Amino acid sequence: MATTPEDLGLFTDLYELTMAQSYFREGMFGPATFSLFIRAYPPNRSYFVAAGLEDVLTYLENWSLSREDIDYLHATDRFSTELLDYLSYLRFSGEVWAMREGGLFFADEPVVEVTAPIIEAQIVETYIINQINFQSLAATKAARCVWAARGKALTDFSLRRAHGTDAGMKVARASHIAGFQSTSNVLAGKRYGIPVSGTMAHSFITSFPDEMDAFRAYAWSYPETAVLLIDTYDTLAGARKAVAVGKELERQGGFLQGVRLDSGDYGSLSREVRRILDQAHMNYVTIVASGGLDEFQLEELTRAGAPIDAFGVGTRLGVSDDAPWTDMAYKLVSYDGRPVLKLSEGKRTLPGAKQVFRMRDEEGSFDYDIIGLREERVPEGEPLLMKVMEEGKRLDSPASLGEISSLLTDEFRHLDDRLKVLRDPPTYDVALSPDLKALYNRIEGELRDSEIGLTGGQGQRERTT
Amino acid sequence: MATTPEDLGLFTDLYELTMAQSYFREGMFGPATFSLFIRAYPPNRSYFVAAGLEDVLTYLENWSLSREDIDYLHATDRFSTELLDYLSYLRFSGEVWAMREGGLFFADEPVVEVTAPIIEAQIVETYIINQINFQSLAATKAARCVWAARGKALTDFSLRRAHGTDAGMKVARASHIAGFQSTSNVLAGKRYGIPVSGTMAHSFITSFPDEMDAFRAYAWSYPETAVLLIDTYDTLAGARKAVAVGKELERQGGFLQGVRLDSGDYGSLSREVRRILDQAHMNYVTIVASGGLDEFQLEELTRAGAPIDAFGVGTRLGVSDDAPWTDMAYKLVSYDGRPVLKLSEGKRTLPGAKQVFRMRDEEGSFDYDIIGLREERVPEGEPLLMKVMEEGKRLDSPASLGEISSLLTDEFRHLDDRLKVLRDPPTYDVALSPDLKALYNRIEGELRDSEIGLTGGQGQRERTT
Repeated sequence: MATTPEDLGLFTDLYELTMAQSYFREGMFGPATFSLFIRAYPPNRSYFVAAGLEDVLTYLENWSLSREDIDYLHATDRFSTELLDYLSYLRFSGEVWAMREGGLFFADEPVVEVTAPIIEAQIVETYIINQINFQSLAATKAARCVWAARGKALTDFSLRRAHGTDAGMKVARASHIAGFQSTSNVLAGKRYGIPVSGTMAHSFITSFPDEMDAFRAYAWSYPETAVLLIDTYDTLAGARKAVAVGKELERQGGFLQGVRLDSGDYGSLSREVRRILDQAHMNYVTIVASGGLDEFQLEELTRAGAPIDAFGVGTRLGVSDDAPWTDMAYKLVSYDGRPVLKLSEGKRTLPGAKQVFRMRDEEGSFDYDIIGLREERVPEGEPLLMKVMEEGKRLDSPASLGEISSLLTDEFRHLDDRLKVLRDPPTYDVALSPDLKALYNRIEGELRDSEIGLTGGQGQRERTT
Repeated sequence: MATTPEDLGLFTDLYELTMAQSYFREGMFGPATFSLFIRAYPPNRSYFVAAGLEDVLTYLENWSLSREDIDYLHATDRFSTELLDYLSYLRFSGEVWAMREGGLFFADEPVVEVTAPIIEAQIVETYIINQINFQSLAATKAARCVWAARGKALTDFSLRRAHGTDAGMKVARASHIAGFQSTSNVLAGKRYGIPVSGTMAHSFITSFPDEMDAFRAYAWSYPETAVLLIDTYDTLAGARKAVAVGKELERQGGFLQGVRLDSGDYGSLSREVRRILDQAHMNYVTIVASGGLDEFQLEELTRAGAPIDAFGVGTRLGVSDDAPWTDMAYKLVSYDGRPVLKLSEGKRTLPGAKQVFRMRDEEGSFDYDIIGLREERVPEGEPLLMKVMEEGKRLDSPASLGEISSLLTDEFRHLDDRLKVLRDPPTYDVALSPDLKALYNRIEGELRDSEIGLTGGQGQRERTT
């Protein structure tokens, strides 16, 4: 297919560039550190799976503005020629500290920290949040599904109802990291090397004069890997036809791999279909269920012991439907050596470049985390943020999806099971280090004096005049 | 920035290709018609704004598989050399009927119908749903915001928390169609010609030693267009500093354009800030509010008469948070001249290529719609589906965003106000034509006899043997 260029140089919010104009005019080229973190847990969430760093590093290594980008900015009549000249040569030259993809993190913890000349660090904000927020959201939703499925195979079916093309690709990747065996997304198979799976839609059945013909045609095309969709007209009638076709395959040396349910009550239908298959001595035929599933239904079905071997999980995974957003933010924590914070109601930030330390108990399970300053040492605390980019160049080659997935499996095993419950989980304990607290209190006090006390007084005067 | 090729040839579900293998083997190259429609209203929805057709037509005109795509498919070991040869030359050669972008549609109504040789019509399913579903969802959410804002200016701030890059771009476009004046998304400004807006983030304030310095620096950069963000430390203190800087601008012949609130209680804060500005004889300075807004809060604030001139709407718009998905489906309705349907529980479909007829009352307002067969004539009914592509080529040049937006404004004016309420709206009346009903009943009866009765009987026999 003709390639559509995806040019992301201007994938940013306008204010990043209007601020740049002012920083440039003021000669502010000092290093700024920004922390990326989630402020509050969305409904039913008690942990997050870090994902998206790989795309961010690729973006940072390649970011630049094209001639057409500069022409467009010029035409908006908002920017000086000097700034546009500067931007036309600009590359990202900064440093990035980050948690590894597949790691678990919690509210308030920086998952990425960027240090760069402030203009650069601002312009890349939008893409960094756009990718890490959504990919982490999708990986977290997928991890919940994997936990609820208790070892049963899962396939990502979300491509068609994910929010656009990029989301569809990223959900395939994120769900594979979280433990999904495969995806229906062929492009994700090609791009990421994820196993692909899928067999037939209802349209296949209805395109034939009758269901039996459709089953036969498909089975002859895939005599050892066919999964027949049996709910087009009537699920139990479909199951009996699948048995008949399976018997025909057996006589030819093939075998039917499975049948798929896509509507109705999966619990009772799966039991009846299992009985039909077993009565025909076809206990090797697997049952797959799909259609509107999420972690809540997976848990119900697995708890009830429904004889379903594998699940296709689509829309609700792809949009993280019970929690389609987080309040992930990218906040300035230090400029030119001066730690900073904001006091906005409900949105306070913690100053300074940071480190997150994970404390484990004697079995290696997560006990609690400490958010400290980057240079702090916390005895027994495992530092989670690693330097991954320096002077705009990544320091390590990308981890494979297999490595990322293994990391998550290991981390998840060491997470308290109480935090894994699907509804209203308790909160993991995250403390602030004494140094960070002291720094926060000092700066907060200074700001109260300088920014609020004083002008509050001015305001009073204004009112009385 | 280096362009990342976005190659969408394999942006499809695997089953589209495994079915292709079987269609190919069976020599099934007959024309198939698929209907794209939403089965059920998500929460709080009573209408949908059609969006996404433009991308779909571009995709259909350009779809093909590259050499690498074919190599990848070959490597999956699932496809015959004959099929892969066939696919390597395949282009979309079909016909498309569609509602215009910016038009209003309702549950069960086909918004797009595709007729093409069945292999082609299947492969393009995934992208078509992926785009039309999300773009319509976003345009609908945006239309709700515009309605709730009652004429106040809206800006799209959703880019950072939309689900990936494509979603961010499409929300900017969809919200502009729906009546948003501008977007913060610079790439959308460049690509779609949408006005861009934005001024400063909290990081700008905190990067300066004090707020007053930050305000001054920005005001000198933009002496006639600055909007100062005043909630970094204390909103009312920030408002007083904005007044001081505004006075300085006045003395230099400039003026402060506005102030922005991004946290706290927007209702009471906007009143207090308005009073501070007015007392300083700066009634020309506008108040902008942003931060976690959606149509429900917009309605509350505008009803309460909060003196806010413009709103930035971000995350909740970008993910359509109260309704992040629909059950939009693309279903085979006719193959090789034979109308078809499926009976799956809760997911029945209507057979045959269709037309949607809109019935209006004497004032031109929407009265009810009739879904009929494509060749049917309904006196006084305005047909909504137009032929937009023939033999793989679009028939008309793309409508401009302005034209699309005007169409929506006009349609929305003719929609009953009762359907516009934000919570639990009533349902618009959509009837089936007598011919469509008769066709459905005939085919449904035939299927009951051939597919269920018979094998149901077989099932009974199995159980009694």
